[in-house]
Amino acid sequence: MSAKGMLIVLSGPSGVGKGTVRKAMLNKSSIRFDYSVSMTTREMRPGEEDGVDYYFRTNEQFEDEIKNGGMLEYAKYVDHYYGTPLKYVNEKLEAGTDVLLEIEVNGAMQVREKMPDGVYIFLTPPDLPSLRRRITHRGTDDAKTIDKRMEQAKKEIEMMSNYDYAVVNDKIPNAVKKIEGIIRSEHLRVPRVIDKYKKIIGED
Amino acid sequence: MSAKGMLIVLSGPSGVGKGTVRKAMLNKSSIRFDYSVSMTTREMRPGEEDGVDYYFRTNEQFEDEIKNGGMLEYAKYVDHYYGTPLKYVNEKLEAGTDVLLEIEVNGAMQVREKMPDGVYIFLTPPDLPSLRRRITHRGTDDAKTIDKRMEQAKKEIEMMSNYDYAVVNDKIPNAVKKIEGIIRSEHLRVPRVIDKYKKIIGED
Repeated sequence: MSAKGMLIVLSGPSGVGKGTVRKAMLNKSSIRFDYSVSMTTREMRPGEEDGVDYYFRTNEQFEDEIKNGGMLEYAKYVDHYYGTPLKYVNEKLEAGTDVLLEIEVNGAMQVREKMPDGVYIFLTPPDLPSLRRRITHRGTDDAKTIDKRMEQAKKEIEMMSNYDYAVVNDKIPNAVKKIEGIIRSEHLRVPRVIDKYKKIIGED
Repeated sequence: MSAKGMLIVLSGPSGVGKGTVRKAMLNKSSIRFDYSVSMTTREMRPGEEDGVDYYFRTNEQFEDEIKNGGMLEYAKYVDHYYGTPLKYVNEKLEAGTDVLLEIEVNGAMQVREKMPDGVYIFLTPPDLPSLRRRITHRGTDDAKTIDKRMEQAKKEIEMMSNYDYAVVNDKIPNAVKKIEGIIRSEHLRVPRVIDKYKKIIGED
């Protein structure tokens, strides 16, 4: 009675604390899932390990992967490629294991195109929900600063609309708890379980 | 920054224990919601209270409500009407309170037509997930009993496909915990929160 694993995509604006939340989730044992290690062409830093922090590859190797359709998503930042190899994700999902990706918003949208069944979680900065209060109560910012902050907030809300869930990263344990709750509930969604039930009665 | 409340519809095959689960949920304080009291034309039994167990109405009163579009859903069982008055549900939702309905599957489908934004939870009997194991391992049932059980299981799976979530009612506290998790997670869904964010930046 094995079902396919669930793809969980954790994303959000840069600087929101995606990596910290992801690490906190990996250290918790109450939910079982695997983390998909990214691939990059940047140099390995002291203390980093190939296959743990990243799969470290040459430019040529990475571009071969792209050509061969081996990347679920990728992007180039400051002359280096970063991306998610498709193979590992598929293998784990087929084996019934949930897979967590922690990626930038552009990458998340690439993944959503290819894997619409995944669970897409947008981590929001803690100041987004309290934005208006902060702006109106502080009164110390000049018009330019306020405009800039409003622009940023608008962008983040636009991004959010492409996701299934919005989780405020106010405190790491709060955010982790909410994400775990989302994962548990998503496993109860009828489209995810009905095939299992149909299999039981031999209707598959 | 008030948002509309969420409609939660708890349903499932008769005898699955909907009422017990609903009562267990009402006795817990960790989640705040109101329970929508049903309306009926059957006679009040000793110990029952009007407006608590049911709104007790005459046949004429109930049929007037139907005519005036005042019922969110209703059905007739054994010469008596049972149904959910629309007014209370709408008032609570508008005030930002979550409302729980515990109703039969036919009623749930009537509600889904009118309120597609609700969260529809199907409570499954504990023997549905283990059906095949029970059938193949016991070996004591005659063919007719097995056929009947398979028919019943098929019906239940068909019903389930109209819901958002399937929760096994194996033990009451387990089912309650899962339903609470679903409610919490549903409150984080982007379509439910994005208007609130847009309001913050004055885009509503």
